[in-house]
Amino acid sequence: MQGFDYQTPTRLIFGKGVVEKLPEVMDGFGKKILLTYGGGSIKKIGLYDEVKNLLKDFEIFELPGIQPNPKYDPSVLEGVRICKEKDIDVILSVGGGSVLDCSKAIAAGAKYEGDPWDLITYKVRAKSALPIVDIITLAATGSEYDMGGVISRTETNDKIGYMDPHLFPAVSFLDPTYTFSVSKKQTAAGCADAMNHIMEQYFCEDSTILNDGFMEAALKSLMINAKKCLENPKDYTARAEMMLACTYGCNGIYSLGSSYTGWPCHGMEHALSAYYDITHGEGLAIITPRWMKHILSEKTVSRFVKYGINVFGIDANLDKFEIANKAIDATYKFFESIGIPMHLKDVGIDESRIDEMACHVAENEGLENAWAPLLQKDIAEIFRASL
Amino acid sequence: MQGFDYQTPTRLIFGKGVVEKLPEVMDGFGKKILLTYGGGSIKKIGLYDEVKNLLKDFEIFELPGIQPNPKYDPSVLEGVRICKEKDIDVILSVGGGSVLDCSKAIAAGAKYEGDPWDLITYKVRAKSALPIVDIITLAATGSEYDMGGVISRTETNDKIGYMDPHLFPAVSFLDPTYTFSVSKKQTAAGCADAMNHIMEQYFCEDSTILNDGFMEAALKSLMINAKKCLENPKDYTARAEMMLACTYGCNGIYSLGSSYTGWPCHGMEHALSAYYDITHGEGLAIITPRWMKHILSEKTVSRFVKYGINVFGIDANLDKFEIANKAIDATYKFFESIGIPMHLKDVGIDESRIDEMACHVAENEGLENAWAPLLQKDIAEIFRASL
Repeated sequence: MQGFDYQTPTRLIFGKGVVEKLPEVMDGFGKKILLTYGGGSIKKIGLYDEVKNLLKDFEIFELPGIQPNPKYDPSVLEGVRICKEKDIDVILSVGGGSVLDCSKAIAAGAKYEGDPWDLITYKVRAKSALPIVDIITLAATGSEYDMGGVISRTETNDKIGYMDPHLFPAVSFLDPTYTFSVSKKQTAAGCADAMNHIMEQYFCEDSTILNDGFMEAALKSLMINAKKCLENPKDYTARAEMMLACTYGCNGIYSLGSSYTGWPCHGMEHALSAYYDITHGEGLAIITPRWMKHILSEKTVSRFVKYGINVFGIDANLDKFEIANKAIDATYKFFESIGIPMHLKDVGIDESRIDEMACHVAENEGLENAWAPLLQKDIAEIFRASL
Repeated sequence: MQGFDYQTPTRLIFGKGVVEKLPEVMDGFGKKILLTYGGGSIKKIGLYDEVKNLLKDFEIFELPGIQPNPKYDPSVLEGVRICKEKDIDVILSVGGGSVLDCSKAIAAGAKYEGDPWDLITYKVRAKSALPIVDIITLAATGSEYDMGGVISRTETNDKIGYMDPHLFPAVSFLDPTYTFSVSKKQTAAGCADAMNHIMEQYFCEDSTILNDGFMEAALKSLMINAKKCLENPKDYTARAEMMLACTYGCNGIYSLGSSYTGWPCHGMEHALSAYYDITHGEGLAIITPRWMKHILSEKTVSRFVKYGINVFGIDANLDKFEIANKAIDATYKFFESIGIPMHLKDVGIDESRIDEMACHVAENEGLENAWAPLLQKDIAEIFRASL
């Protein structure tokens, strides 16, 4: 078992109607709020009006239009500008993980004199950040309970994950009813994203009985409940269970004491969505089973056997490679069954830039140090197998 | 699924040798330290000298002699007196859960002008508390990662659990090697305590796939690793896995979104150790299977079936009550197999005060609101079945 230094100070307020507590919570941080949100789905579900009404005693400035795969330019830059100009006390992020990731970059940038890109690329470490409160409307990224975010810079095809302990949200509101209106496409992509967060931690050299059971349960919960959500989008319990399993995704609690994995699928997918702006969860679902096939070996097979038996109930008496291959096929089939397009060409990616993307990943993601090391040629092979 | 409002801000620093970071961590809180500890085991394992050496640039005051089932008088009162008199900045608790529980009461009492008993009994809510850092030397209570403590007052036979958000340790150091010298008796009792923390959350009306899997994995981890620790007390991995499973015990993360249970075994055991000062984990192990038998009914059987199949691997094709009874027997036999005395008479408790204790529990622990409600006569029956 590995050592660790772990802290997640975020307060989670979970359940139907919890947003009523918003004024009391915001009051603890100040009166000047930057309200960040995306393309308007929060207006459609009435949440925008509810928030504005609840916060009528506060001074609210708005940054709308934050896109999926949130952009350094204009969103982060514009948010930082408003925070500095208006002397904002606290950021209120209302939306999914992209809005929150962008808000985290703004929170750090608001307290830094230079270019926020310095912080995102770790050229400079953040010394502080504005406090962040969020209302999550999509079960997927786990950004509501971690200190990280992912920001894209279009002109350089960069999609960078950055982390800083100042960036844990102070308070996250999670009301499963806000996810009732999430489309089938986004529900499935969110499920795949959250499942992949777990797989990125599960496939490692050294784990524990506790971590494995925790992650296997979370994977089963996500698969069972995603199907229920797709059948009945207003199934409260299913939406709630999905939301909680997603929340734990990236703060490390699924794998305290487990060994380093390198998060290879995220490393590869970041290139896909940086170059082609595809839906992150779909990119992950497409890559994951191909990555699994690629790394399956005498060294890695025992983890796939455990995964196959405990997550998919595959017969433990079969040959170990047969179990592993069945588990990989079951992974593929599950993603397919929830409606995810399972080929890169289905999401508009062809052969033309594969080598360029593989080179970008190999140079930037450190996957030569992953549990199953990936060099540029491995990455290109996985991309080609995904076409 | 139930709503919840959850936060655990404690930083966990886990692994071999982590105590080296102590000076840097303590420096963040101030220079005047109250060092709390128990009967001297920390001197035997060299930890006392190590801590004093690491903190030679700090001003240290000491409160030794904190007992298991820590006492309001003299320990809490004496600690509060020192904190006030010496203007202590931070408490450093070195030992097991009892030392830490006592330190929490001191931390709150130090910032309160009246009698600390007011805080413990919720007559007054704490407005603040001194920061607490701990080094844990026993895998058991989970006090290192929760906001609660249990304090005994001998003259009134009270043993009271109190909780307050100010009482989360700021930082908990967990080095599994400090538990190498824990006796077989205390290793087993710690395992039983931690297992019971999980059972107190598992047996409820409304749980989730995720929570159940998390708790079942933790129970299996505790059973497998406790046996390894008893066979080879210096098995680092086994000690480490036990330590982590214990740590999650009482901060609620095992059961976020699950329904209220009432923690009935703890309610009953508190009377046993208040009246007879027995080892808490042993008291819990003795009561637990008798409580299970007592509450087994058409209403509760499905949880016992799940527990039996998933934790003990009992054949799912058997009759539901047969599975439940086999699970309860397996629970008993596991505790017996790790050397716990499984009858109250083995720990010095006879018939004489059973009705008095049952009355005390019924009046003070609210077990009429537990998932399976317990009235005074039920409590007395469970105690008698445990004799």
